[in-house]
Amino acid sequence: MATESRMQELRKDPIVGRWVIIAPDRLTRPQNVSDVEELSSEGFDPFLEGHEDATTGEIMAYRTSGQANQPGWRVRVIPNKFPAVTVEGQLEKRGVGIYDMMNGIGAHEVIVECPHREANMSRLSVDNIREVFWVYHDRLVDLKRDKRLVHGLIFKNKGARAGASLDHAHSQMIVSPIVPITIQEELDGAAKFYNYRGRSIFSDMIQQELSTEDRIVLETEHFVVMCPYASRFPFETWIVPKQQSSHYEDVTQPVIEDLGTVMKSVLMKFEIALDDPAYNYVLHSAPFSSKDLPHFRWHIELFPRTSRVAGFEWGSGFYINSVPPEEAAKFLRETEIE
Amino acid sequence: MATESRMQELRKDPIVGRWVIIAPDRLTRPQNVSDVEELSSEGFDPFLEGHEDATTGEIMAYRTSGQANQPGWRVRVIPNKFPAVTVEGQLEKRGVGIYDMMNGIGAHEVIVECPHREANMSRLSVDNIREVFWVYHDRLVDLKRDKRLVHGLIFKNKGARAGASLDHAHSQMIVSPIVPITIQEELDGAAKFYNYRGRSIFSDMIQQELSTEDRIVLETEHFVVMCPYASRFPFETWIVPKQQSSHYEDVTQPVIEDLGTVMKSVLMKFEIALDDPAYNYVLHSAPFSSKDLPHFRWHIELFPRTSRVAGFEWGSGFYINSVPPEEAAKFLRETEIE
Repeated sequence: MATESRMQELRKDPIVGRWVIIAPDRLTRPQNVSDVEELSSEGFDPFLEGHEDATTGEIMAYRTSGQANQPGWRVRVIPNKFPAVTVEGQLEKRGVGIYDMMNGIGAHEVIVECPHREANMSRLSVDNIREVFWVYHDRLVDLKRDKRLVHGLIFKNKGARAGASLDHAHSQMIVSPIVPITIQEELDGAAKFYNYRGRSIFSDMIQQELSTEDRIVLETEHFVVMCPYASRFPFETWIVPKQQSSHYEDVTQPVIEDLGTVMKSVLMKFEIALDDPAYNYVLHSAPFSSKDLPHFRWHIELFPRTSRVAGFEWGSGFYINSVPPEEAAKFLRETEIE
Repeated sequence: MATESRMQELRKDPIVGRWVIIAPDRLTRPQNVSDVEELSSEGFDPFLEGHEDATTGEIMAYRTSGQANQPGWRVRVIPNKFPAVTVEGQLEKRGVGIYDMMNGIGAHEVIVECPHREANMSRLSVDNIREVFWVYHDRLVDLKRDKRLVHGLIFKNKGARAGASLDHAHSQMIVSPIVPITIQEELDGAAKFYNYRGRSIFSDMIQQELSTEDRIVLETEHFVVMCPYASRFPFETWIVPKQQSSHYEDVTQPVIEDLGTVMKSVLMKFEIALDDPAYNYVLHSAPFSSKDLPHFRWHIELFPRTSRVAGFEWGSGFYINSVPPEEAAKFLRETEIE
């Protein structure tokens, strides 16, 4: 196969309209992640404080001391070494016969969550976690100024089985000129509900969940944490703000204050109840271009990787979940954390 | 967690409309598949000829000799021992507050593809593979008579990493009262294209692919095999019939004759080029209720499991593929099979 470095492309499936990133440069990643079952906590850690020269230059950092690319930071943002999209170049939307494509313009950043070696965000301090969520906010605010970009996706892969290739707590952000299909489907579905009933589906969902409590993991002043009614995966968990807000970048200080506590609690419950599982989370937020959308609400979806996804499930969207969300929620709810 | 046997449920996500199966009975599966990296080819094989009493009673079989549940069969269909849906009971569609659900009515069957122990369909004879595809046909024809059921999903998980729990070649069928969301999205997208342009997207796609040949793996009288333009995964491969037909159960003899050869070739190419990978395939076919739909075409999507899906990809539908389909197709096209 060709090995020369080439431009990433965004390509649209002509049937369902799903955009995918074709990123051939990633072939040069040092290992084929499919071969790794457990990440080693030994060996060189490029994300460690003091190893700043092992990474590409920092985009930003919250610092106690020092200058860029020196020790003294608490949370640090760097470009992904194997980016799926890059900021250089023109967007160049074009057709290829019946197909639509554009250059893979965008930002692919890594948020290093702590200066010391710690694999799981659950073991960071609540203040540290809050700062990570402030960094997400700050990066979205900065990147939405680039008029080529329409959406920011923030996610975390924790553990080899969840797709991580390093065991130092980090998350990622892909800011791109398209809206990912799952977000678009949520926007469409939520708008349909709103237009028909005049209410937000998120508000209705929270109201119903709080009235039965069957699927509630925990509730705080600003958040409801629940295993959703139609969970695709065992222990799938959503963190949903109680107040209407479609754009994560519009988050306020009291909400992040609470979110730090909530995230730490949920991840500690995962760690204790599910024996330190690999997991992913994805922050769903509205596209940059719009004002606050009354029908949509930003939220975080978490997926512990306790079971293998059979693969036919990708090919059909038809998920079989062996743990009813009521049982998952009860189990997590009753899991005591120190 | 509760261990009593309970009815499976189909539940609809209130935002995007995706149905999932909540199948708590599957908790009693003998192993947590997430712990298995390789299937053992030693040990007891319940699918072996002569071991008929180790499985639930057969639903049908193509036989050279013998009676039901005796040796002498070539391809054999049995109920899944850990079914995601079951035929007993009433459909009972109902609302739960804002949510929609129905009982998990349906058929979940296993097609044992050969009487001898062989893990990979690629090593079965072409005639054997043809019979497997005839069995798919026969089961759909039979099950579509059940007025409660609206769609049949046929799929294969080969290898532990693809979700298989036995290493004897088999595929599965889930016939259910709902249309899986990915199929529904394809139907909707294809209908939109047809209504706008008056042509089938499948026909346009085939025409364009055959004209450039960049993404063609092979072509026969009745089929085009290609790596799709917006492939989600490295070496994603589609088998698309050249002639319009939306329902697989309307397949004709010359087409299955050809399909046997095509499937064997594709799977041999996977085995040689990708070092005997785990893989999935899913047969996409139109819902039972409709007549032939001019905008939709049944087809088979194959996914070798060469890379780990990072999980954020489920949460966003935003796939990053490190192998351009042109390179994947060239590699598979040039892979010689005996």
